[in-house]
Amino acid sequence: MRAALMERGKIWVDTLSDPIPLTGEVLVKTRACGICGSDLHAARHTEAFVNTSREAGGAFKLTTFDPVVLGHEFSAEIVDYGPGTPHDLPVGTLVCSVPMLARKDALAVGYSTETPGGFAQYMVLSRALVLPVPAGTPDTHAALTEPMAVGLHAVNKAKLSGDEAVLVLGCGPVGLAVITALKQRGISPVIAADYSPRRRSLALGQGADTAVDPKQTSPYAYPELRRPDNVVIFECIGVPGIIDQVFLAAPRNARIVIVGVCLETDHSRPLIAINKELSLQYVLGYTLDEFGESLQRIADGSFDVAPLITGRVGLDEVAGAFTALRDPEQHAKILVEPWR
Amino acid sequence: MRAALMERGKIWVDTLSDPIPLTGEVLVKTRACGICGSDLHAARHTEAFVNTSREAGGAFKLTTFDPVVLGHEFSAEIVDYGPGTPHDLPVGTLVCSVPMLARKDALAVGYSTETPGGFAQYMVLSRALVLPVPAGTPDTHAALTEPMAVGLHAVNKAKLSGDEAVLVLGCGPVGLAVITALKQRGISPVIAADYSPRRRSLALGQGADTAVDPKQTSPYAYPELRRPDNVVIFECIGVPGIIDQVFLAAPRNARIVIVGVCLETDHSRPLIAINKELSLQYVLGYTLDEFGESLQRIADGSFDVAPLITGRVGLDEVAGAFTALRDPEQHAKILVEPWR
Repeated sequence: MRAALMERGKIWVDTLSDPIPLTGEVLVKTRACGICGSDLHAARHTEAFVNTSREAGGAFKLTTFDPVVLGHEFSAEIVDYGPGTPHDLPVGTLVCSVPMLARKDALAVGYSTETPGGFAQYMVLSRALVLPVPAGTPDTHAALTEPMAVGLHAVNKAKLSGDEAVLVLGCGPVGLAVITALKQRGISPVIAADYSPRRRSLALGQGADTAVDPKQTSPYAYPELRRPDNVVIFECIGVPGIIDQVFLAAPRNARIVIVGVCLETDHSRPLIAINKELSLQYVLGYTLDEFGESLQRIADGSFDVAPLITGRVGLDEVAGAFTALRDPEQHAKILVEPWR
Repeated sequence: MRAALMERGKIWVDTLSDPIPLTGEVLVKTRACGICGSDLHAARHTEAFVNTSREAGGAFKLTTFDPVVLGHEFSAEIVDYGPGTPHDLPVGTLVCSVPMLARKDALAVGYSTETPGGFAQYMVLSRALVLPVPAGTPDTHAALTEPMAVGLHAVNKAKLSGDEAVLVLGCGPVGLAVITALKQRGISPVIAADYSPRRRSLALGQGADTAVDPKQTSPYAYPELRRPDNVVIFECIGVPGIIDQVFLAAPRNARIVIVGVCLETDHSRPLIAINKELSLQYVLGYTLDEFGESLQRIADGSFDVAPLITGRVGLDEVAGAFTALRDPEQHAKILVEPWR
């Protein structure tokens, strides 16, 4: 099969042998697979990414010297079953799955040198984790199940009572997923902040009540965000120093949900957070239920993901797409279609 | 009046003019006043303390070059009233107060060069903030109202459902106050950790189910603290690096309550907290209601504070007490009795 490989930031297309499904697994043709910010980070800072992944433990099987097929935000089509696995979904069924292969040692699909991710023509998935995509849902939309589940999970972890004023810092794909989940739940006001006009426009499209350029106006100057006790801030940027900035600017008793993944050591001044009695909730991923709900909401249109798809490329264009994604004016989500 | 003064760590006794109560204020004789960890920090790191206090804003009026009368954990006796202030509590009434003088610009009693704290024979307090001590409560016990309110508030902010396993890191006066409030509420197990045998013994005395020496055993090795989803950790140490250590050792979904006041910039690795979906709640002080509840619980014996009082000194011994408190084996709370 054809696949885009990555090693220390270099990306190229090569021919690999097709993966072989084991018992309890399915072989699938990848239909569409989004490029995630973590993929960009893995490519640009491979060594730090590998080290951090090891420290975090778990299913990420990466080295700095083995090529890897990235891609963990996918939709795919069932082609075949592993030995002894009931053929309970017809060949050709469009499916999604959490990017996890449930072998003896679980493997992270898209971050493993032992199994290919979605930037390849074929993958193997665990049948037990595969969800059929409701009829009528385009494969491109279904590929956004994973990133939208991240936003849904972050909103769930915030345990909103419904009368909070919400600030979303950063309107990349994660921030946009958070905004989508907030608005689906009827939360208002949702104030979005991003330096990029394109991203602010996408934020408004997903339902944000206001989208602020922090260079022009401090988002914290909005009256709704100055009242203490009922402000929730979703941090969707994930670079060092942001949390300390939020400490300084947040109103008293603000609840800060950390959705952006900062891979470096961070610094902050606890006394500022203490004086305001701030709280931080770090979040990661989603539950299986949330993944299923995300797919359902994409299918029924309550998560409108079409505007987030700003590019569709074939395998030969993956390297270029990684470069293009550095510019927030150009893109939100680029989908790779390995059969394109 | 006689008072212990502090300037850049130097502590000496001098004669000052008695403070004069304004309208709405009372003049009180200080009966007993605890030495707090923050007082030690203000003396040892005056410049950092002054700078941080300014950054935090509010009622702390401190400079590095004006002598200050510290002391904000006090009981006192009403002596006189300011002009036009109803004499509604008899002279001689034993009282407590939150350490705040409600003038046009609020002043922190014990951290202000404009009004003396409790290491002096007299103070002025706002009548509206003064609470009479229930009959039969010793003045020495009533002086612990403030630090015990800090523990009560931290426990309230943790929003415990009652079935959590709790770890208290650090068994200085703040940790001991947290343990006391936890056990009054019937929380179990409460596992306390401190390097000092004396402090571990005090922790057990306040009701901790276990007290661990982290040099011998990791407190996180206790089975109750290894189950995810229901562990609450009270951080009562407040030095840089502790939060990162807690990130590394805590079980998944642990809730961390930051009660220790770290006055420096701190560092931590967000990815570790993200992978475990940890949460942090920074807390400060107490409400007026919690202060009143703390006094009531000391009076009715449900907060047993007697074991925490490990020393009682006069004004001439304040400097020595500041030195003695550096050794956790010697002391928990030393009370200064300015009329001793």
